[in-house]
Amino acid sequence: MTDRSRRRFLRGTATTAGLLGLAGGAHAGQGRALGLPVSGYGQRARHETAARWLTPTRYLASTASWTPLADQVGSLTPAGLHYERHHAGVPDIAPDAHRLLIHGLVRRPLEFTLAELRRFPQAERLCFLECSGNSYREWQGPGGVDVQQTHGLTSCSVWSGVRLADVLAECEPQPEARWLVAEGADAARLTRSLPLAKALDDVLLAYGQNGEALRPEQGYPLRLLVPGYEGSISVKWLSRVKLSAEPVYSREETSKYTDLMPDGRARAFTLMMDAKSVITAPSPGPTPLAPGFQEIRGLAWSGRGRVTRVEVSVDGGEHWQDATLHGPVLPVCHTRFTLPWRFTGAPALLASRCTDETGYVQPTREALIAARGANSFYHYNAIQRWRVDADGSVHNA
Amino acid sequence: MTDRSRRRFLRGTATTAGLLGLAGGAHAGQGRALGLPVSGYGQRARHETAARWLTPTRYLASTASWTPLADQVGSLTPAGLHYERHHAGVPDIAPDAHRLLIHGLVRRPLEFTLAELRRFPQAERLCFLECSGNSYREWQGPGGVDVQQTHGLTSCSVWSGVRLADVLAECEPQPEARWLVAEGADAARLTRSLPLAKALDDVLLAYGQNGEALRPEQGYPLRLLVPGYEGSISVKWLSRVKLSAEPVYSREETSKYTDLMPDGRARAFTLMMDAKSVITAPSPGPTPLAPGFQEIRGLAWSGRGRVTRVEVSVDGGEHWQDATLHGPVLPVCHTRFTLPWRFTGAPALLASRCTDETGYVQPTREALIAARGANSFYHYNAIQRWRVDADGSVHNA
Repeated sequence: MTDRSRRRFLRGTATTAGLLGLAGGAHAGQGRALGLPVSGYGQRARHETAARWLTPTRYLASTASWTPLADQVGSLTPAGLHYERHHAGVPDIAPDAHRLLIHGLVRRPLEFTLAELRRFPQAERLCFLECSGNSYREWQGPGGVDVQQTHGLTSCSVWSGVRLADVLAECEPQPEARWLVAEGADAARLTRSLPLAKALDDVLLAYGQNGEALRPEQGYPLRLLVPGYEGSISVKWLSRVKLSAEPVYSREETSKYTDLMPDGRARAFTLMMDAKSVITAPSPGPTPLAPGFQEIRGLAWSGRGRVTRVEVSVDGGEHWQDATLHGPVLPVCHTRFTLPWRFTGAPALLASRCTDETGYVQPTREALIAARGANSFYHYNAIQRWRVDADGSVHNA
Repeated sequence: MTDRSRRRFLRGTATTAGLLGLAGGAHAGQGRALGLPVSGYGQRARHETAARWLTPTRYLASTASWTPLADQVGSLTPAGLHYERHHAGVPDIAPDAHRLLIHGLVRRPLEFTLAELRRFPQAERLCFLECSGNSYREWQGPGGVDVQQTHGLTSCSVWSGVRLADVLAECEPQPEARWLVAEGADAARLTRSLPLAKALDDVLLAYGQNGEALRPEQGYPLRLLVPGYEGSISVKWLSRVKLSAEPVYSREETSKYTDLMPDGRARAFTLMMDAKSVITAPSPGPTPLAPGFQEIRGLAWSGRGRVTRVEVSVDGGEHWQDATLHGPVLPVCHTRFTLPWRFTGAPALLASRCTDETGYVQPTREALIAARGANSFYHYNAIQRWRVDADGSVHNA
């Protein structure tokens, strides 16, 4: 794709303005009526309809909603479209009444109000969160009808709060403490165990998201934020942290959030999210591709750090080209990649492959199944392929 | 401020949990009622009330609203709280009907739909926008009652769109073109001139903000985004770009948005926003400071590039300490800074001073007035001071 070919496309589709009256500014029919006044808190335009997709289920308090990745512009997810996964719905918590209790293997069990937590040094962290159930349908072959259904359980935000390490220091952990158990204040009392070493490294007690208070569905007024690990361990509506010598082996780390291997045993505490990428445009949607220039756009991410390379194939993996990574490329963040491409009407098979700073390369579906079998539900991170047919329609392949 | 002194503070205020029943998780009185279901597009918690402050005026369609910087967590501004400055209100534009006309000194005048613009390569830019009228009251001495009123006309977002240079290339600018004139589709037809060299450098035609479509009050569905320059030149609801040899000398760059100097002459086209900083906490507010640890937090920015240093004084500028800059420190972005401090009850005079990568140092009020007199309305960027009284109340000084 050269500049010249893109120019040719535009020559064909843009309306030459030479026929229009160009003297004044009233060419586009816009009115002169006074617009709406300034306001205290803005909302999106009434013409905008991008929405999370709700997993069809009888129980909408215990399900997921998926970020519309194809509609997203840029690498950040707006708070209103951040994916959700709740186990017993979103509680309505008055922040003044909320408390965080820290106890167990500590010399000084303490209970904190939010006002007390806000007096600790403020920390900020840009990172993605991904549900380990993201792409679960794809274990059994192409499942989701579009990128929202295949990959929409990942989102990227700026999180603000305080370092858990700073708060734990006040409680004086005892030497035998190796884990902590985090519990949410939702009706499910969702409970997860986290190695203390990670908790002391880069974990936040987050009260802010994208510059304002956490949204209710993201754990308002307080959540754990565990960069790089599967989403469910970033416990929302956090009300209790208990230090312990062992994990608690809760439902959400035994019956659920474990990976059944071909030999019948299950991997547990597979917390780290492996490198993954997906092409968001072109991707399956209601409007077929028009011939001509089509920028291939996508997102890549890794729980282990920075994305260092994304390759794109338009022939299903026979040949690969390096995509451009758009900075700032930050660790444990959605990284935007693009590659210029021209749709000629010939069928194509689009795919992207991500490499992270540890050298880990996103596997093919075949390699992933060979290693882990097809009994798993969580942690599917294989290369995703989109088939472009001659009519411009795009399909999960 | 040592770790030890902070710990002492917490010992005094946090409730020791030893008296509570710690066996179960039901310590905080949270209920077991099922919460709210997943939803298509989320809203903030009903308990949150942070709002833009509206400049008091008879005409709310031709005024400003100010970002609540003291309530902001982190360096990014949520779209709903991004400052506004409109000259004739917010038009309601249906995106399918919107057009961008590019004409004047070009070989090929062209009109683009949004769908056509979206097919150009996508670009993303994190940057602040600041109205050059920000802090205008401070020219006459301490004016705003809090940081929202003194500095709330600056906000920081991720903007997405296409490079204006790419689109202009399609129109084939003529060699004698040196400026462009940008016009909005609001009832004011707000019109500003921009040097073509800047337009070809890093200017975007932005259709996205913080991961979704522009908000109506930010120029939906299309705005100019001119990093580092005064906000009004990032023309909202952009409908027309005309290339020319000279600026158009519109109302907004002659009668307004010029700086009256002591000798009676006016500076025009002072587009670049100089380096500036402000302490957002502690800052004037309804709740007096409690004695003990108080992290000093603030924001610093420069239109010329990266912030390289922020110094903080607690004695009105007699002595300065280097604050910590929190990364990623990006060019033309709000950069968060912090310094640990302890309020003992002794009166204090807090101030911050910013240096950018060009070596420019934010001036004192005295130095600014000595250079420019006190007849200006725009481009006030002097060091801001907050006086902390013995009772913990904080005031503009």
